[in-house]
Amino acid sequence: MGFMKHIRACNKHNPADFVPFLVEGKTIGKMRPVFAQTLGRWPDVFGVSNSRVELVVESVDLQERSNAVAAVIEQLVAEGVLDHLHGELYSVFDDSRDNPLLLLDRAMAPYFGIRSLGQHINGFVRTDDGLKLWIGRRAKDRINYPGKLDNLVAGGLPHGLGFEENLAKECWEEAAISAETAAEIIPVGAVSYNVDTAKGFNPFTLFCYDLELPADFQPRCTDGEVECFYLWPVEKVMEIVKTGEEFKLNCNLVIIDFLIRHGLIGPEDDDYLELLSGLHPSL
Amino acid sequence: MGFMKHIRACNKHNPADFVPFLVEGKTIGKMRPVFAQTLGRWPDVFGVSNSRVELVVESVDLQERSNAVAAVIEQLVAEGVLDHLHGELYSVFDDSRDNPLLLLDRAMAPYFGIRSLGQHINGFVRTDDGLKLWIGRRAKDRINYPGKLDNLVAGGLPHGLGFEENLAKECWEEAAISAETAAEIIPVGAVSYNVDTAKGFNPFTLFCYDLELPADFQPRCTDGEVECFYLWPVEKVMEIVKTGEEFKLNCNLVIIDFLIRHGLIGPEDDDYLELLSGLHPSL
Repeated sequence: MGFMKHIRACNKHNPADFVPFLVEGKTIGKMRPVFAQTLGRWPDVFGVSNSRVELVVESVDLQERSNAVAAVIEQLVAEGVLDHLHGELYSVFDDSRDNPLLLLDRAMAPYFGIRSLGQHINGFVRTDDGLKLWIGRRAKDRINYPGKLDNLVAGGLPHGLGFEENLAKECWEEAAISAETAAEIIPVGAVSYNVDTAKGFNPFTLFCYDLELPADFQPRCTDGEVECFYLWPVEKVMEIVKTGEEFKLNCNLVIIDFLIRHGLIGPEDDDYLELLSGLHPSL
Repeated sequence: MGFMKHIRACNKHNPADFVPFLVEGKTIGKMRPVFAQTLGRWPDVFGVSNSRVELVVESVDLQERSNAVAAVIEQLVAEGVLDHLHGELYSVFDDSRDNPLLLLDRAMAPYFGIRSLGQHINGFVRTDDGLKLWIGRRAKDRINYPGKLDNLVAGGLPHGLGFEENLAKECWEEAAISAETAAEIIPVGAVSYNVDTAKGFNPFTLFCYDLELPADFQPRCTDGEVECFYLWPVEKVMEIVKTGEEFKLNCNLVIIDFLIRHGLIGPEDDDYLELLSGLHPSL
């Protein structure tokens, strides 16, 4: 049950606890009824019934529509109903990230049940002693997951930046990986999960990347998020994931995907197919 | 819609057309009601009602139980109700392949709605001109998919052979890959699908493997299944999969998985997440 426990921990969701959130007739999120009632105070922005919340801002302009929602959120933050803002915008979309229906502060994603997108890099080195993985230890002063183990590079994918562009930015900020080295990164898939928290519903998709690094590479954190880096044999990382909870929760999923793709978890594992479908739920 | 069309073609299933098939109280297959009624002629072997079929052979011994089912099948083949047998047994299991509940001729899997297991190898070469894939053309005298394109090696996983053991056997039979080369094969995941056919319900899982081959490797078919082999640029293979139907149906899924893992289909593709969940449905 070792690896599956992380997938189960990331997939605790009760649909009955939420009402859908619609923009332009499309369900693009869901929220707790108590939060829906709060939004009902702004009937020009949100149409709230017992069974759904709909964005009713008259404008079809993305910026105007997003400004109207942002004004409500700022008021609720000022009242202490909502947490601090993150200062970075997520695209809320139905079919394609290139056609956002709304822009929303990243910290608001769980309240509205909007899918958060992230990018995680498995940085590894092939040595005479076998495969080794670069692992970060998060700084103890972080709000989220202080002191936990992390992938070499991991970050959210904000509105307005392409996949490669944001990856290069995160590579530099989190591990001082040059643009030249970052060009070697290979997209290898994605893992998704859906979890309820006190704030609301958190659907997440993490795009996964592999980066084979030279033996003399040494990561260095430039933005204070990581305290130190380790270069560990893959078997040690595997053991930590299998038996412990030392990694930031969703990093476990990214590493399990890596272990499967590199043959370190094989088809002899009775959970193999359950792991594969668990990492790739239908959205 | 290019890549998704293959996933949709492999996942046409209407649960309402089937009744469950149980062994030891566990649902391990499903069948069309008309086939269930036929099995009702042997009340000592099959307990048949309108809503289910249950194996009622009194013995708990795997061999005795399987013999009783085999006798029914042989009679139905003799009567022309069922097709020819394959002569190779599949393990029918609930949790683990190591604990089969029943052994069944491979050709009977769709009638009973038993999950078929296969192993497919992506054989590739890294050249100065980029990645190239070894592709087989199936012989024109095959019963199944004559003349279609195929993976370098692909075969069913019968009862009594381990994953590595069967792989080595298939490698030799289908492409004259030596045991030494076969030892370099890396398990990289699995793709699954569920499709209805005239015979019944076909749930399939194909375990996927990557094998990087040296430039001077030349496959050779030793069992007559393949007519010839091509070494094609990955871009050409990708185009054939995306636009055509020249590959044996389920090979498309194995290649799409390969293209995603090697970064040739990237997250910019609007179908990326749908492809990933489509390749890994919950079983």
